[in-house]
Amino acid sequence: MCRWLAYTGSPVLLTDVLYTPVHSLIDQSLHSELGAETTNGDGFGVGWYDTTPAPGVFRSIEPAWNDQNLHELAGHVRSHLFFAHIRAAIGSPVQQSNCHPFRHGRWLWMHNGFIGGFAAVKRDLVLAVDEALYPEIKGGTDTETLFYLALSFGLEHDPPGAVAQAIGFVEACGRQRGVEYPFQGTIATSDGESLWAFRYSSEGKSRSLFFTRDVRRLRQQYPDREILREVSDDTRLVVSEPIGDLPGAWVEMPEAHYGVVTKGGDQLMPFAPQPPPKAP
Amino acid sequence: MCRWLAYTGSPVLLTDVLYTPVHSLIDQSLHSELGAETTNGDGFGVGWYDTTPAPGVFRSIEPAWNDQNLHELAGHVRSHLFFAHIRAAIGSPVQQSNCHPFRHGRWLWMHNGFIGGFAAVKRDLVLAVDEALYPEIKGGTDTETLFYLALSFGLEHDPPGAVAQAIGFVEACGRQRGVEYPFQGTIATSDGESLWAFRYSSEGKSRSLFFTRDVRRLRQQYPDREILREVSDDTRLVVSEPIGDLPGAWVEMPEAHYGVVTKGGDQLMPFAPQPPPKAP
Amino acid sequence: MCRWLAYTGSPVLLTDVLYTPVHSLIDQSLHSELGAETTNGDGFGVGWYDTTPAPGVFRSIEPAWNDQNLHELAGHVRSHLFFAHIRAAIGSPVQQSNCHPFRHGRWLWMHNGFIGGFAAVKRDLVLAVDEALYPEIKGGTDTETLFYLALSFGLEHDPPGAVAQAIGFVEACGRQRGVEYPFQGTIATSDGESLWAFRYSSEGKSRSLFFTRDVRRLRQQYPDREILREVSDDTRLVVSEPIGDLPGAWVEMPEAHYGVVTKGGDQLMPFAPQPPPKAP
Amino acid sequence: MCRWLAYTGSPVLLTDVLYTPVHSLIDQSLHSELGAETTNGDGFGVGWYDTTPAPGVFRSIEPAWNDQNLHELAGHVRSHLFFAHIRAAIGSPVQQSNCHPFRHGRWLWMHNGFIGGFAAVKRDLVLAVDEALYPEIKGGTDTETLFYLALSFGLEHDPPGAVAQAIGFVEACGRQRGVEYPFQGTIATSDGESLWAFRYSSEGKSRSLFFTRDVRRLRQQYPDREILREVSDDTRLVVSEPIGDLPGAWVEMPEAHYGVVTKGGDQLMPFAPQPPPKAP
Repeated sequence: MCRWLAYTGSPVLLTDVLYTPVHSLIDQSLHSELGAETTNGDGFGVGWYDTTPAPGVFRSIEPAWNDQNLHELAGHVRSHLFFAHIRAAIGSPVQQSNCHPFRHGRWLWMHNGFIGGFAAVKRDLVLAVDEALYPEIKGGTDTETLFYLALSFGLEHDPPGAVAQAIGFVEACGRQRGVEYPFQGTIATSDGESLWAFRYSSEGKSRSLFFTRDVRRLRQQYPDREILREVSDDTRLVVSEPIGDLPGAWVEMPEAHYGVVTKGGDQLMPFAPQPPPKAP
Repeated sequence: MCRWLAYTGSPVLLTDVLYTPVHSLIDQSLHSELGAETTNGDGFGVGWYDTTPAPGVFRSIEPAWNDQNLHELAGHVRSHLFFAHIRAAIGSPVQQSNCHPFRHGRWLWMHNGFIGGFAAVKRDLVLAVDEALYPEIKGGTDTETLFYLALSFGLEHDPPGAVAQAIGFVEACGRQRGVEYPFQGTIATSDGESLWAFRYSSEGKSRSLFFTRDVRRLRQQYPDREILREVSDDTRLVVSEPIGDLPGAWVEMPEAHYGVVTKGGDQLMPFAPQPPPKAP
Repeated sequence: MCRWLAYTGSPVLLTDVLYTPVHSLIDQSLHSELGAETTNGDGFGVGWYDTTPAPGVFRSIEPAWNDQNLHELAGHVRSHLFFAHIRAAIGSPVQQSNCHPFRHGRWLWMHNGFIGGFAAVKRDLVLAVDEALYPEIKGGTDTETLFYLALSFGLEHDPPGAVAQAIGFVEACGRQRGVEYPFQGTIATSDGESLWAFRYSSEGKSRSLFFTRDVRRLRQQYPDREILREVSDDTRLVVSEPIGDLPGAWVEMPEAHYGVVTKGGDQLMPFAPQPPPKAP
Repeated sequence: MCRWLAYTGSPVLLTDVLYTPVHSLIDQSLHSELGAETTNGDGFGVGWYDTTPAPGVFRSIEPAWNDQNLHELAGHVRSHLFFAHIRAAIGSPVQQSNCHPFRHGRWLWMHNGFIGGFAAVKRDLVLAVDEALYPEIKGGTDTETLFYLALSFGLEHDPPGAVAQAIGFVEACGRQRGVEYPFQGTIATSDGESLWAFRYSSEGKSRSLFFTRDVRRLRQQYPDREILREVSDDTRLVVSEPIGDLPGAWVEMPEAHYGVVTKGGDQLMPFAPQPPPKAP
């Protein structure tokens, strides 16, 4: 439905990641190869961390491929951790408040996929959102609802646990309403220091997700690539669909797994939804 | 906060009502005189009835004063009953799904004013919306919430009763949350045949509302005005703020009253919110 | 680069032509099959004739496939002659003043293709536009420039002659600047009564163009199709790319030809640019 | 017609200048006090210099007061020299390519005012633009035309001389076409190192323009203001209309003068248009 990209590592100009590579995310807004839709033209967003407390978010309802302001921003903003998302809307209106990434405090959140039978379960899900968080919901997407569910389940303290409970709750509500496959997708979230990426679907056929191999290994493989010498050892990209022209640079995230990129080292772990005992 | 206009009578080109008169609604988007805000530049909308089953709705986030498409539409669309609204946003995002008028089936709905302490009471109100109607809510405004509350309370069968219960419910919820004046505003609604207009506020100092005197009396007063000879006897305009240059043409809707313009004749009646025994 | 559609015949709701058919123009905004680009998401426009003197024009920079206002307009506006255009921008900004169709008085104009080396020849072309018309140019596209050139060469009096001179002038200017193939494309223009459609390129490999067979013949071929019984004998569609599901309904416009649909009967004629003796 | 602001000095977050002060430029988009129009809601733009070769430019057709992306950008971008402009359109369409500031290489340009009788003289002016620069003109405003005229007259080498010739040429062309007062306005331009601001009108009644007093003097006057201790001695603001709450902080630019803020010190000089011997 959508395509996204998350970067963490040495500070770079956004344009070097979003526009420069072969088959870049901006190219994918017109010509995605692995997406459920080839065109992702229903708005876009970028979220980036810098020295200010909360991340910046720039979202627009124009297609990314021709957006002058995105082009300008990407050419002037540097960040060590940023998200970018291009949208193919399925049902909810094309409006800024429905564009990813979503933000709460220092947290960013984006998603490629959907909540099955969302019209039928939306009310159940929204009711389970913490009352204090409820007024912050500004749009109407399944993704934003899932974000506020995860926040209600403790995203800020235990991201994998909260996402497991949020998706578990989505599956429980969906099945109660007769939805066969209640959740589909890949998710990225961050607090500005660590980056979590999830791949899961009730059906067991999740949307594609890839991350870059260790930079040190890539340098050995491509000793002539200047970009690899410039970025730090801990630089990582996570993407819906590979970009660039370095065969062997990408590893597919396994089905029903999540990864975390953090200062203490990276981890790849199995993921399973965890039906909450009750609504939060 | 906003300005609106409702027309019912002989079919006219929208432009003759929206653009042509002195101090027209489009002028008021830049220079309102009676509004809480002088500028109403946060989007606009028109809704019009014709021979198709549901009314057409055209809404945009641009200011009305410079919108080329509104200008074109108004110059080519004729209608016997239409709504127009210009918005001054207070809190909720400037997006198409937050522009008035709102539509459900054959019903249109628009509002000038606000629900007091909306962030605090929104959840209570949304929960009271009929479950079958809930998925139709696309935006985040107080007005759309009130519309779906009124629909849940039976707007389609008894408009004054449903509006009285909806506002009564808003007042009850608001007071429970410590809101001194939970409702403020004027409302227009229609099913394409009759037009209802309400003026009420918890504080007893409601936003302004005016309707035109009987056309036959106006013809006597202004025998030279061609427009008055052209329109039918039952033509009526209801507006937040008078337009045109005919002194004596407008009557102020009294505080806490509502009017209905219908085939069986017009009526002006007192209005009082009616706290519902329980949520619908 | 773009896709377009022109309709003339019995008055119809725009939606019946723009949205209802299989592989409709709106579908083509996401998935064109014959276009130079598969996605035509850089804005759109419709222009329609009714009883008012000048045609209405509705243009937007959003992709057509998700535009609510286009959907509403098409469901409420009837016309006996209308144009629709979806844009894939090549160089000039995505802005309303660059969306087709263009209008001058009662005339509409739209185009699929390009002027080769436009940046190099634009100044020469714009200088040749009649001084009185020059201030009407609001955007920056090759198509609008060509329209004002054609108007300067007498479009309103002799459309085929004026278009031949305009394209002849474009070819002369282009070749002077070393452009190998100065013109490419298909053009539609109308005064609200007749419809002219041109297919020509300097290279001799013009963008595709199709028109519907005679309605009487189609009725014999498809006796069960209600729509064919409803429309008048003189109804015609001209399109960049066939729509609907009636094999045999479409005839390809031959290379370097133009057609005119008018009250006195239709004509198909060879087209050749005519280098003007001098700038107009 | 418009309002603008130019800042040069210590690097600051844009938000500290654009949003924080009392009666800020963003406030003026809704409620200007000295402008020809009280509302400046027809788009806006910011241009800022940083370490990349060309300045960044962010322009939008939404009103500035409610634009989320401007708010985000201003909260995350720091610059030592930036322009901001809010537009009240008079004639030319509300589109990104008509929003100020305009950019050519390292140069930015913005304007409050108008070229008198622009429709009548536009062709003469555009013809005088250097042929190599002509293809860069993307919009249709008088301001952009004036910018490219000034560039054609040597803006990059002698800004005051080029502006004098550009305005002189505008006056000459205007008078030839019977325009009584061919030019009105204030202009800011920069190459990223120095800042030039002009105030001039053919009528001798120019739009207002103000600049800040010397920071050292302001610190003596307001010893408690933290902001004054933070910014460097050479910090300057030039504005259409004073912002903030420091009486005595602003000096009005005299009629028919220009100022330059540069490393070698500031200068205030008389300005007079200089009719060029011939078109450039």
